[in-house]
Order: sequence, then structure tokens, then C-alpha cells
Amino acid sequence: MPAPASHMPPASIQPDRKPSVDTLRRLVQSDMERVNQTIVQNMHSPVALIPQLAGHIVAAGGKRLRPMLTLAAAGLCDYRGDRHIGLAACVEFIHTATLLHDDVVDESDLRRGYDTANAVWGNQASVLVGDFLFSRSFQLMVADGSLEVLRILSDASAVIAEGEVHQLMTTNDVETTEEAYLEVIRCKTAQLFAAAAEIGPVVAGRPADQQAAMATYGRDLGIAFQLVDDVLDYSAEQETLGKTVGDDFREGKATLPVILAYQRGTEAERAFWARTIGTMEQTDADLAEAQRLMAKHGTLETALERSRTYAGSARAALLTFPRNAYRDALEELIDFCVDRGY
Amino acid sequence: MPAPASHMPPASIQPDRKPSVDTLRRLVQSDMERVNQTIVQNMHSPVALIPQLAGHIVAAGGKRLRPMLTLAAAGLCDYRGDRHIGLAACVEFIHTATLLHDDVVDESDLRRGYDTANAVWGNQASVLVGDFLFSRSFQLMVADGSLEVLRILSDASAVIAEGEVHQLMTTNDVETTEEAYLEVIRCKTAQLFAAAAEIGPVVAGRPADQQAAMATYGRDLGIAFQLVDDVLDYSAEQETLGKTVGDDFREGKATLPVILAYQRGTEAERAFWARTIGTMEQTDADLAEAQRLMAKHGTLETALERSRTYAGSARAALLTFPRNAYRDALEELIDFCVDRGY
Repeated sequence: MPAPASHMPPASIQPDRKPSVDTLRRLVQSDMERVNQTIVQNMHSPVALIPQLAGHIVAAGGKRLRPMLTLAAAGLCDYRGDRHIGLAACVEFIHTATLLHDDVVDESDLRRGYDTANAVWGNQASVLVGDFLFSRSFQLMVADGSLEVLRILSDASAVIAEGEVHQLMTTNDVETTEEAYLEVIRCKTAQLFAAAAEIGPVVAGRPADQQAAMATYGRDLGIAFQLVDDVLDYSAEQETLGKTVGDDFREGKATLPVILAYQRGTEAERAFWARTIGTMEQTDADLAEAQRLMAKHGTLETALERSRTYAGSARAALLTFPRNAYRDALEELIDFCVDRGY
Repeated sequence: MPAPASHMPPASIQPDRKPSVDTLRRLVQSDMERVNQTIVQNMHSPVALIPQLAGHIVAAGGKRLRPMLTLAAAGLCDYRGDRHIGLAACVEFIHTATLLHDDVVDESDLRRGYDTANAVWGNQASVLVGDFLFSRSFQLMVADGSLEVLRILSDASAVIAEGEVHQLMTTNDVETTEEAYLEVIRCKTAQLFAAAAEIGPVVAGRPADQQAAMATYGRDLGIAFQLVDDVLDYSAEQETLGKTVGDDFREGKATLPVILAYQRGTEAERAFWARTIGTMEQTDADLAEAQRLMAKHGTLETALERSRTYAGSARAALLTFPRNAYRDALEELIDFCVDRGY
């Protein structure tokens, strides 16, 4: 497929147009349709609950950012085969499995009336269907036959699980450091972005430096993405998008905006954070107070600055590759991820 | 290593001695020590909860039957390398991950005061540490480098998850068929026994018929093992071993002894099973009544007969291999698994 519109200036320097994920989506559209077919075919099981529950999650699966990264990275490397289709499905299966496992709740959450897709099928079904998708992903990788891809995605899976456990241990801990927070999001979010992107040059048979460059692109994009996500959870911008604000707050997550507000806070403000995040004794007025303290100390802005630093690193990694339509779209994706925060 | 005691008659035909797992355990003891070292080394993580929780489960892990199968099958095939050590650890990691995920409970279980190791760390930790061990297992397989082994264990993992979901869907269903029950235990239990055993001839480079024979041995041993386990849950024998009787009953599991008692029961008896297993309205006297009905209809005996059929098939599969100390020990293991039921 010839790279369309490669004579155009990159979207990111067109001042009249908000960066969007649509450029990338259009570019990989026909590939993504094949990925979706592969996903549906491989959710099949004689056990009816599996396609039912997995289909529910996959259908609700949102932007398909991670498999898009695999497809775009393959395009960036002029890959002409079919392997990126099945492997993009593997990446999405692993992501879906982690979503299902994130849905699993504890007794304490149930007491607080925590409600997810889980509520429909229960903890056990979420765990087991997640396990099935995870296993199916490895079956697909084995069918593909690349030990290098198996290494990348089994490493990523282990790191994701470590990051999730680490996050579990720092929940409610307002004294978590910024370094610990960044390590958590590097593991739980950015590692799968990195793996998804790295698979492109791997299937295209590109040398190690290009594989490393795409891994860096994916990782730093993923960190920037998660930083902005954690900002949006406290921002009015999110409300205009029709999404709930304050989910992280209600779950007592010590994200960067909270960590910085605690660090920069007065004694009284620290007591507020210790009560609301540390012991999760919250009243209806507390979220507004949390937002006021974040504004006072500029913690959302600091978190967005951090995301811009990682975005710059992701952008630099792309320069390893000659410019084509895929590189432009991957560059615009960085802007899209970061600009959501404004 | 020379096969010790291979001039002796098989333990299984020594009439003065109860079949035991100890013959096998002694035979693989030095290998198993290396497996245990590999397990401990690979549970390492900077996230402290991971070695802590995984260590708790691995330490409590009981008989280590599955990795023993891999070690013994390698010995049966005169394997002289080291690969069986790491792969036996993979098998145990997958087993441990499924134990952790089985521990995950639903709100309804919590309401009934269901209590497991899970109670200490919570659902989320059980899920995530299980995911870590599962991923670590695949990392170890990738390091081993055999796509054949990766295929066997990723297939097994998918089948196990399917079997667990299937079991979840048939819980409380007293009208489940014997065929559906056998399919569940073939998937959730016997598939990992089959995979563990099959890895032996695979690493030894043995031909396909020997791989298939060991897979059959493992699968039929696993089915016999689970049938007997499900019998023991209702048997006085179990009580003399200091274990609880009636766990499956209290969880509303439609195991074979229940399915047969329902099929063979009067209208009134069927109403009893529908109440106690179907809707799980149980009184303290119900377990004794369940045992009385099983004795009346001989359902435990029928289940044990089924286990003897599978034991016979497992024994026949072993005859593919020339006799050595490993074959004798694997044969005695069959007798041990089945004779537990008396």
C-alpha cells in the first residue's frame, strides 16, 4: 500500500487543526478490520460465557490504541506481510485480560458499592475469562512462531503484573514518591505500549536500534498518556467529555496530582489528603476541595509538564525512521495524547 | 544417573505394601531440589508482595505432583540434559497461578463467610500475583526456547481456563450430565497433568507416538485423580486424614457423586439435591443426608469405578515405554491416586 499523503506537512505542525487519533485510525483502517476479525474468531469457545463476556469487553474496548501502534509501527517499517494482524490481536487480548482482571474487586470495594462490568458476571468469571484471553494470546504468538515476539510480550505481561501489584501496595499511600508513581505507570501502562510498538520493526526484520527506538516511542508515549489520564480524572475538561471526574479520588489512588499536592501542602492540607486518600473517609464536598488544592499548588500543570517531557522523548525516537505517512500519524498521536489534557 | 532398583518387581505388585507417591518422590528428589531453587529464584521481584504471596502458596503447595510428572517423564525417556528442571518449574507456576485465581471469591461467597488464603491479601492481590506467575512461566519457556513446549503449555492454559469457566457455569446445576462433568475435569485438572507428562518425551527428542502416550498417561491419571478427589470430599476416609469433608457440597459443586445421586434419586431426593446444591439452602444435617443418599445409590462406588477405568488407560499408555525405575514409579503413582479412595 503506498503511503498516502506523505507529501503533506505533518499534522502536528498544521496550526489550524486539533491533533486527533483519526489520522492514524484512517491509515490502519483496513488492517484494523482484519484485526477485529481475528479477535472475534479467537474468542470462540464451546463455553458460551467466554465469547459473551470477552465480546462485551472487546466491543466496549474503546480506542484500540495498542493494536493500532503495532499496525502503524509495521507500516512505518514498510512491512508487507500479514503477521502484524495476528500480533496486534495478541496485544489487544493481553490488554483486555488486564481490564478484566482490573475489574476484580475486594470485599472492601463491594462494601463501598463499587460497580463495574464485573457486577454483571462476578469476580470469578472476570478472572477466568481474562485467563482464557491471556492464554489465547500466547497460543496466537506460538502460531506466529517468533520467539522474539514471545519474549517481548511475556516480558511485558510480567512487568504489567508487577506494576499492578506495586500500584495496589501504594494505593492510599499519600507519601508515595513521584519516582515510585512513575515506575508504576511505566510498568502497568507504558510497557504494553512499548511492546505493541516494538513488534512492528521486529516483524519487518529491522535492526536492534530501530526496535529499541520504537520501544522507546511506545514507552514514553504510554507514560505521557497515563500522566494525562491521571490529570483528566481531576479536570473540568473531562466533564465536558461526558466522563466522570474523581474516580481515582474515590478509589484512594495516589496519582501524581495527589502526591504533589501532599508534598506542597500545609499541615492542614496534608491532614486532608491523609483523611481522604489515606483512610478514604470522604464527604461529598471533598472532591471539590481536592481540586481547589491542586489548582492552588499547580499540580495538574506540573503533571502535564512531565507528560510533555515524555512526549518530547517519544517524538525524538521517531526521528530514527525516515518520514512517511505512518511517522506523521504516530507523531500526531503524541500530540493527541498530550493535548487531551488542556 | 543409573535407574535405581530396576531389578525389583514393580511396587504395585508387592502385595504387602500400600502404593505411595514416595517411590516417585525419592527417584526425582535431587531434580526436585533444583526445581525448588528455580521456583524461588524466579519468584523474585522488587515488589515485595509478589515473593511474599507466591512463596506462601508455593510453600503450601502440597505434593508437587505436576512437576514430578515432568521430571519422571524425562527420566522415563533417559533424558540427560537440564531443560526438564526449568520446565517443571513452569508447570508448577501455572498450577500455582490457577490456585491463586481459584481463590478469588464473589460477593455471595463472602456473604457466606467463605475463607481462603485470599482472606489475608484480598482478591486483587491473588489475581495479580497469579498473573505474574503465569507470565513468569512463559518467560521461562521462552528462555528454554522450544516452540513445541510453548505450544503445549499455552494450549493447556487456554483449556484450563475454559474448563474453569465451564465449571463455574455448571455449579449449582444438579442436572449436569456425567459427560459435561468429565469434560470439565478433563479440562481444568487433567490437561495440565497431560502437558506436564508430555514435556518429558519432548525435551528428550522422542517421536510423536511417545509424546502422545505420555500425554494420554497424564490426562487419564489426572481424570482418575480428580474423580477420586471428588469422592474423598464425601468420604469418611478423608476425615481420617484430618481433612474437611463436604467442601464441594457447601460450595454447591455438581460433582459426579451428586450428579449420579440426582439421576438415581426419587422425586423427594431430587428435591433435596435441588435445594442443597441447586439453591444452596443448607442446614447442618444436610451433609449427612447427602452421604446417606450417596451410599443408598452407590454413587461413590460408581465414581471410583470410573476412576479405575481411566487408571487402566493410563497404565496401558505406559507400556509404550520399556520398563525402568521411572516406569515402575509412574505405575505406582496411578495406584496411589486411585487407592486414596478406599
